[in-house]
Amino acid sequence: MRNPNELTATEAIAAIGSGSITAQDVVQACLNRIEEREPVVGAWAHVAGEPALANAASVDAAPEQTALAGIPFAAKDIIDSHDMPTGYGSPIYDGHRPIWDAACIALTRAAGGTLLGKTITTEFANLTPGKTANPHDPARTPGGSSSGSAAAVGDFMVPFSFGTQTSQSTIRPAAYCGIHGYCPTQGDFRMSGVREASGSFDRLGLFARSIEDISLVRDVLLRRPVQPVGPASETPPRIGFCRTNLWDSFEPAMRNAMEDAASRLSAAGARVRDFAFPSSFDRLADAHRWVSSFEFARNFTHEYEQHHDLISPRLRDGRIADGMGCSFETYRDSRAYLANCRAILPELFGDIDFLITPSAFGEATTGLDTTGPTQIGSIFTPLYLPCLSLPVFTGPNGLPMGLQLLSLPDTDECLFRQARWVENHLTA
Amino acid sequence: MRNPNELTATEAIAAIGSGSITAQDVVQACLNRIEEREPVVGAWAHVAGEPALANAASVDAAPEQTALAGIPFAAKDIIDSHDMPTGYGSPIYDGHRPIWDAACIALTRAAGGTLLGKTITTEFANLTPGKTANPHDPARTPGGSSSGSAAAVGDFMVPFSFGTQTSQSTIRPAAYCGIHGYCPTQGDFRMSGVREASGSFDRLGLFARSIEDISLVRDVLLRRPVQPVGPASETPPRIGFCRTNLWDSFEPAMRNAMEDAASRLSAAGARVRDFAFPSSFDRLADAHRWVSSFEFARNFTHEYEQHHDLISPRLRDGRIADGMGCSFETYRDSRAYLANCRAILPELFGDIDFLITPSAFGEATTGLDTTGPTQIGSIFTPLYLPCLSLPVFTGPNGLPMGLQLLSLPDTDECLFRQARWVENHLTA
Repeated sequence: MRNPNELTATEAIAAIGSGSITAQDVVQACLNRIEEREPVVGAWAHVAGEPALANAASVDAAPEQTALAGIPFAAKDIIDSHDMPTGYGSPIYDGHRPIWDAACIALTRAAGGTLLGKTITTEFANLTPGKTANPHDPARTPGGSSSGSAAAVGDFMVPFSFGTQTSQSTIRPAAYCGIHGYCPTQGDFRMSGVREASGSFDRLGLFARSIEDISLVRDVLLRRPVQPVGPASETPPRIGFCRTNLWDSFEPAMRNAMEDAASRLSAAGARVRDFAFPSSFDRLADAHRWVSSFEFARNFTHEYEQHHDLISPRLRDGRIADGMGCSFETYRDSRAYLANCRAILPELFGDIDFLITPSAFGEATTGLDTTGPTQIGSIFTPLYLPCLSLPVFTGPNGLPMGLQLLSLPDTDECLFRQARWVENHLTA
Repeated sequence: MRNPNELTATEAIAAIGSGSITAQDVVQACLNRIEEREPVVGAWAHVAGEPALANAASVDAAPEQTALAGIPFAAKDIIDSHDMPTGYGSPIYDGHRPIWDAACIALTRAAGGTLLGKTITTEFANLTPGKTANPHDPARTPGGSSSGSAAAVGDFMVPFSFGTQTSQSTIRPAAYCGIHGYCPTQGDFRMSGVREASGSFDRLGLFARSIEDISLVRDVLLRRPVQPVGPASETPPRIGFCRTNLWDSFEPAMRNAMEDAASRLSAAGARVRDFAFPSSFDRLADAHRWVSSFEFARNFTHEYEQHHDLISPRLRDGRIADGMGCSFETYRDSRAYLANCRAILPELFGDIDFLITPSAFGEATTGLDTTGPTQIGSIFTPLYLPCLSLPVFTGPNGLPMGLQLLSLPDTDECLFRQARWVENHLTA
């Protein structure tokens, strides 16, 4: 029997439902794991152990089981919580206490989830890292900007957590930490109470250790009855293998893993074809840079004007300087360019069910002073596609690597079933 | 010589620049006006007179004139300010003090504006009114949800102010209060620090007493150098006269004013043609309702779960109940429907420069228990078009009525020049 903290959310809820464990057991096991491992991993900005145990106890005592049955979760510290500090990864807001819960936290609590604490974010969900280390190798980054959210789930400190993604801030840390990461079709999840970086691209991201859990939390955030994922499609999928124009930059192990996966999925019956964006998509990453930087620089005007010296030079001289120097005409043109790219995606996909592409360049980058390269996200995030990272590869150092699946907007539920098919055939 | 509070922002900045008045004069004149009229109008949630005078004094003493030269402005109380309370129009947050300035306030302060105070909003920018009365007839509504922002500018308490619009919350109060109201192309202005109602539709709105001022504040919010509006085009515009499917609901005086305006603009050389949306647009208002309600209900989960009895029954049993009852499938279908409508707008416009349509059904509605009908906004707001209300009509009771101009996305600056042409010919 695994420890309760090692169960997925779906498994824990079933175990609580059958009476074999309680929500308090799960919370306590997670707290024990945190106590043991936090000195190495550093995933947490704040842990609220006593309130979490009290909440789990009250859920355990209630006559009816809720959708989440009292199980614990964590939220990136860029997301407001009314009863815990929220520091946005910046010394400007150290110890700040918001007056409300962000929509995602309130919805999860309303479904019976127990907020265990807040997890480390890079500074304002940008590039300057916090203290978190990779749970699989503490000399390496967990990825970012949702560093603590990914590390906490990867280290079995909590079954699921919330992050955000403006470039590659969910998919990359999920891959580095060996877990599932997911961002929905742009717009599906409410961002109220999440500090905005770039409204055109910001998305809530989910971390978990199974597709079932990702789907479960998605239903909770949509405030609808929880539905099972459904079986993997019996018809093998039609897959677009998207090497991207970054292919030569990926680590050899990643390129090999991708080619091998394509072969195995093909052997399992999938139709795998090469997929490349037309040359009209070559400016994706540039357009992503200008739109996000323009918005970021204006969103953080208060901090820039009032707390200039408390912003890291990396952020001030990087994204903010970038955005200050970007004209409105460049911003508007870039925005229009991206809209045009998005408009022809259905035609480009044709009958393809989903794309496969690396979640990151390879294994987690060594060192804690960077969160690793973000370029993959600069291509795909502005396309607004639902995306899912599966922990199905192992790199040369025995560390996890991720396979990213992307499908057309509004096909999230279908993507989950396809992902189950992929997992069945790559992890068999 | 008019009192300094009666000047437009552009006029006041020029007068300060020439040394004929100071920023302190303008702030003091606005404070005097507030002292005189606030008991009748009730536009303000909070007035920060002393800090405003101190800020104006320091701007007056500075060696270089800033873009806004210290002139005062107001912000709807749904917009965060770090040094004044922000109550969101709800008893839940009475006296709440945010930790930051919203992007729009920070940008305006960075350009040398003086935040004079916070103006009354309906409850969470929805339908339940605050205390504000129409400055032209205190027995009538100023409109909403940006009630105080429009009333304060309409009553010469401040030269410009910020509101928001999710349905008709800027254009309608601007029309009722006899001033200019404007919302940009969706996405142009940052919403960080503005409490989200429905992210798919929320836009910042500007209130002022001239087109020049609207353009000035737009430049400030884009953080770019201020550019003059430019002369009205010498070529008469091509105008689409959009009666909408609400035509029979408009007051006779509004219908007459619109027909008369069309005739006069035509006589002045404009090409005025009838413009009607195709029948595929008949579901605009329904789709707007479902998307906004779905999002609103989830955004306010914290308030719904934690402060249920402090939400007005009108809001709880109206929009929130609506949104709770809306399935994700209806939400998603409505969202896709609206995207399809938006995609064919360029084709529908053809060579039309802009549409004209009523800003509201007629004069301001009598009574302070409602902010007037919102249906016009339910049609146009989900189309993401820049829109501008001009105070060019007078109704049967001598009260102002508004003419709304709408153009294609990304043509805001052009719309300003066209609006100048329209004003020249309708107010001559």
